[in-house]
Amino acid sequence: MGSADRGSADRLPDGPAAEANERAAGALAARYGHPVELAGSPLNPVIDALLAHRSVRAYLDRPLAPGTLEALIAAAQSAATSSNLQAWSVVAVEDKARKARLSVLANDQAHIRECPLLLVWLADLSRLDRTASALGAAAGANRYLEMFLVATIDAALAAQNAAVAAESMGLGTVYIGAMRNHPEAVAAELGLPPDSVAVFGLCVGHPDPERPAAVKPRLAQSTVLHRERYSTDHEAQAVKAYDSAMRAFQASQRMPEVDWSRHSTNRVAGPQSLSGRDRLREALTALGIRLD
Amino acid sequence: MGSADRGSADRLPDGPAAEANERAAGALAARYGHPVELAGSPLNPVIDALLAHRSVRAYLDRPLAPGTLEALIAAAQSAATSSNLQAWSVVAVEDKARKARLSVLANDQAHIRECPLLLVWLADLSRLDRTASALGAAAGANRYLEMFLVATIDAALAAQNAAVAAESMGLGTVYIGAMRNHPEAVAAELGLPPDSVAVFGLCVGHPDPERPAAVKPRLAQSTVLHRERYSTDHEAQAVKAYDSAMRAFQASQRMPEVDWSRHSTNRVAGPQSLSGRDRLREALTALGIRLD
Repeated sequence: MGSADRGSADRLPDGPAAEANERAAGALAARYGHPVELAGSPLNPVIDALLAHRSVRAYLDRPLAPGTLEALIAAAQSAATSSNLQAWSVVAVEDKARKARLSVLANDQAHIRECPLLLVWLADLSRLDRTASALGAAAGANRYLEMFLVATIDAALAAQNAAVAAESMGLGTVYIGAMRNHPEAVAAELGLPPDSVAVFGLCVGHPDPERPAAVKPRLAQSTVLHRERYSTDHEAQAVKAYDSAMRAFQASQRMPEVDWSRHSTNRVAGPQSLSGRDRLREALTALGIRLD
Repeated sequence: MGSADRGSADRLPDGPAAEANERAAGALAARYGHPVELAGSPLNPVIDALLAHRSVRAYLDRPLAPGTLEALIAAAQSAATSSNLQAWSVVAVEDKARKARLSVLANDQAHIRECPLLLVWLADLSRLDRTASALGAAAGANRYLEMFLVATIDAALAAQNAAVAAESMGLGTVYIGAMRNHPEAVAAELGLPPDSVAVFGLCVGHPDPERPAAVKPRLAQSTVLHRERYSTDHEAQAVKAYDSAMRAFQASQRMPEVDWSRHSTNRVAGPQSLSGRDRLREALTALGIRLD
């Protein structure tokens, strides 16, 4: 990343480049659980912020500043969207009683009650149905798996921008996949129209400094990044090393130690490990979403 | 967003706050196609960068600086991932002949040939299959729609972080949904194992300043953002206003003018408007992905 390649967001903070280098090295070591060198570092403040992500499950009882939600949604809407269809919506839930009810539907996660703002992201084909209908046309393609995928990917890209924006304000976030545990009940709670479904939630709030979250290490880059063609050549060895890195991380956090490979294998063992989401297909059908 | 709420990435650049306010106002006006006021602005440099996103389809014939790919992937791996399963992979394609072949499979888009780097993002359940198998177990949950959704969302969150990171370096990006036009052929080209599929591509490169891209306006925030419960109360009116904003944008870009509602309705008219992706389900089956 030579200076000639830098855009406006890529200015280094004041202070010697050595400091920035050191910060980047620290961020990468935390992210991978061992030291990693990148050619051409230092990175830049935006990438530094991305590398520092951690999921926050402990929030202060403190409201968000005015304008925060609107800034998050403007960031979300700035993400790419397939053919500009914008096939997503988001429901902002701040009402405590509603958050408590949604928490019960999502495996009773306490942080859903704690956080001041729960964003529920929707794969939303219903707006395209209404738009077509207003023109006297049918949205016949909406019954295909492809369109559900378009809507889900649109929602995910938007949500990730919102998460990045929230963290840039010093807020914490955590995704709630358990919003898919009871899709029909969530839809009823939020008054969703047919052809829309909550694909995940996102808690937003002020992190509680007394219950801090740590950066969790990930698989070695060589495991997820393939050059030109997919390769599993070094995977087994890398997974073994990652099992150790995760155990070291868990020990440092006073969490029970378990290999990642064991954790993951348990998590995908069978329908019983899906917290009821093995019936997601049936739930989508009930919500008017077809996957032809 | 009072100063007490600001994290480390939220420092305003030197210069009067008025300048930052003005920049934010300009960014929001471009994003929505009309002036928008946020309470508590100015925003911050990260959000400024997100708001300035545009899809880039014209690239210089210029390689990326060393370390760029690794920085993008480190950013991608820093995104949240469901239960830390990391059910995604990415294939980095730089070989010109391979990019040309992938371009042919993706509706012959010229920017796939032009850009120095095509990232092909995979929903990848195969690694979990291998990990379970190494422990003598079966990954029985992988045959459910839920796990395909987990993998697709994981891939999208990761890719969006990479896109944000690329733009922070002054690079341009564009997502390639057409990577789903011929999933089996893409899988063969990239040597993908069963239980993995390319869900989209992402071109990365130096934008050609002689063929600049503009920020495209989006639907009014009230159309995608719902408070507590879903509402369509002001939608028809907002879509009408957006049709006008898009026409004004197209005129400014010397593009053919078409209402967004007409464009979108045509795009979802029926299976014939899906560029072959109406058979995505069949393709997933061929690639070993089940959606039970």
